[in-house]
Amino acid sequence: MTLFEETVKNIKPIEIDPDGKIRDYMNKFAIPAGSLGRLEELAISYVSITGDFNKAIKNKVIFTMAGDHDVAEEGVSAFPQSVTGEMVKNFLNKGAAVNILADHVGARVIVVDCGIKPDINSSPGLKIKKVGRGAKNIAKGPAMSREDAIKSIEAGIESFNEEVTNGIDIVGTGDMGIANTTPSSAIIAALDGLDPEVVTGRGTGINDKALQNKINVIKKALEINKPNPSDPIDVLAKVGGFEIGAIAGLCLAAAGNRTPIVVDGFISTAGAYIARKIKPEVGAYIISSHKSVEKGHSVFLEKMGKKPLFDLNMRLGEGTGAAIAIGLVEASMKLFTQMASFAKAGVSEADNV
Amino acid sequence: MTLFEETVKNIKPIEIDPDGKIRDYMNKFAIPAGSLGRLEELAISYVSITGDFNKAIKNKVIFTMAGDHDVAEEGVSAFPQSVTGEMVKNFLNKGAAVNILADHVGARVIVVDCGIKPDINSSPGLKIKKVGRGAKNIAKGPAMSREDAIKSIEAGIESFNEEVTNGIDIVGTGDMGIANTTPSSAIIAALDGLDPEVVTGRGTGINDKALQNKINVIKKALEINKPNPSDPIDVLAKVGGFEIGAIAGLCLAAAGNRTPIVVDGFISTAGAYIARKIKPEVGAYIISSHKSVEKGHSVFLEKMGKKPLFDLNMRLGEGTGAAIAIGLVEASMKLFTQMASFAKAGVSEADNV
Repeated sequence: MTLFEETVKNIKPIEIDPDGKIRDYMNKFAIPAGSLGRLEELAISYVSITGDFNKAIKNKVIFTMAGDHDVAEEGVSAFPQSVTGEMVKNFLNKGAAVNILADHVGARVIVVDCGIKPDINSSPGLKIKKVGRGAKNIAKGPAMSREDAIKSIEAGIESFNEEVTNGIDIVGTGDMGIANTTPSSAIIAALDGLDPEVVTGRGTGINDKALQNKINVIKKALEINKPNPSDPIDVLAKVGGFEIGAIAGLCLAAAGNRTPIVVDGFISTAGAYIARKIKPEVGAYIISSHKSVEKGHSVFLEKMGKKPLFDLNMRLGEGTGAAIAIGLVEASMKLFTQMASFAKAGVSEADNV
Repeated sequence: MTLFEETVKNIKPIEIDPDGKIRDYMNKFAIPAGSLGRLEELAISYVSITGDFNKAIKNKVIFTMAGDHDVAEEGVSAFPQSVTGEMVKNFLNKGAAVNILADHVGARVIVVDCGIKPDINSSPGLKIKKVGRGAKNIAKGPAMSREDAIKSIEAGIESFNEEVTNGIDIVGTGDMGIANTTPSSAIIAALDGLDPEVVTGRGTGINDKALQNKINVIKKALEINKPNPSDPIDVLAKVGGFEIGAIAGLCLAAAGNRTPIVVDGFISTAGAYIARKIKPEVGAYIISSHKSVEKGHSVFLEKMGKKPLFDLNMRLGEGTGAAIAIGLVEASMKLFTQMASFAKAGVSEADNV
């Protein structure tokens, strides 16, 4: 069995609080029942996924998956392709937004080179899992071979498996790759038979003319490559990217390990969506962080049946939304494990409901 | 001049980034312009209020203002009145949700007895500023005298002024008081001439019958007391509460000290709204944390022109929403002070916008 097959096989179906035991446990806390809203739901999800009522979330890891995209040459991004590698260096120098937000919530950032153009010197926070030097231009042919698509997924699986030995209580996804909203929009359009127009947004901030061009590029990519909507690996190979495959692999590996997965924004959701198409049971392990400004994101979220935790008008990626959400999940578990009960606090219960 | 008058006089009008200098400063960061959304706006607010481009937010203080309400005897709450004092003890034992969330974001909680029924033993985290032993039943007459209304505001001012000597970089508001959604709904109905029906919700979780009774109680309170809508102190005296006055005072004192104020949910917003009616300039110093489930909250927010940062279906009060929001404001200032610029990070700027 390949690493990919074995990982997928390991994923067990779970239900969120199937017998209401976690909710019952929570209703003993000295608060009006349900008054902590989604923080209660988060704790219920976390406990359901891990099976642990007493977990202190300590090891928080954000994987920022990086890859280049030759479709950048079609003028679909506001930034030049060189920015992918430049930002990887910025991550390693801890100067990027994801570094600061991860540090704020006590998470470590692992950057994975899944297939960027340049070679980056080895560094403690970097894993080199290059599947290629940039996914090919999807407007002209497939992004990668089917073999490389599996390799990109395995890059994510390996990253998780290596890092889990240092402890992982929660995983956050992240991405870096100039032009990668283009394959992400193409993925959802392909998998769900949607008009690219409905799921294509401005990415890093392109103007109307560039947006129209981007939509045309995605249409062309779908026409030329004819990805098979019922085969998520074919879709990844034809119109995806290395870092998107790695995010899918990360989700599969984390689910197999019963580790809650906090999914960042648009590109991360494309990866998570592929993982869920490969193995629907992955869905239950996923916590959606924020609603991105990027147009297609809410379509992904709806298809996955996920309601994001917050909407701060963000559209940066990197894992920035995941970082903030990890802080919320940790807070929810602190409440769950530390709040005093009515009995312990000597607080009277409701008498008029 | 009284402490109240002096505090109000000290509040200077501010504008949020009037000349765009803070935005310009931010646009040098190695991210697509505006891609951190409301985190950028938060930093811009914080810098505008404090005038400091280099602030590390260290001293975070949540003031949980407690007071009792004899209107509880009308059956407007799901919980017995004794819970107010019981919860104050729970706060001091650090077993409540606000303690855990404040600790999570590195904030300290100061509990202020603004007028609860019982006497609580002195304790390091407690300030005793009792204006009375519970506001009177507003369905039968005024909650308090005008003199006591000013005293309750001064309880908040004094609390801030005492605590500022230990350092305060940001203030969070919080409340505890069984039945206090009733005066809060009455306050907004009175100040804005609204039908109590539109601004009255289920508080700690009352049923339909109790809700109808609560609405009738508020109607009666407004009929009997005839609060003067153009006199916020009269409204506070007639249909308010001691902790609500103290929250108003806290907002006035913080604004006078150019300290950003993070306002919690429904009851806190009632206090902040009174402060803003007393001195409209206070509005610019206020950051709204979350959208509460409590029905009238969005009405308050709209009147104040504030968009909450998040909506997690919370309705607990105590300062729990403020705690989470303080974490976001701190994160925004870490981004503002620590993110690498395009130049420093060696990242290429946009070339296709």
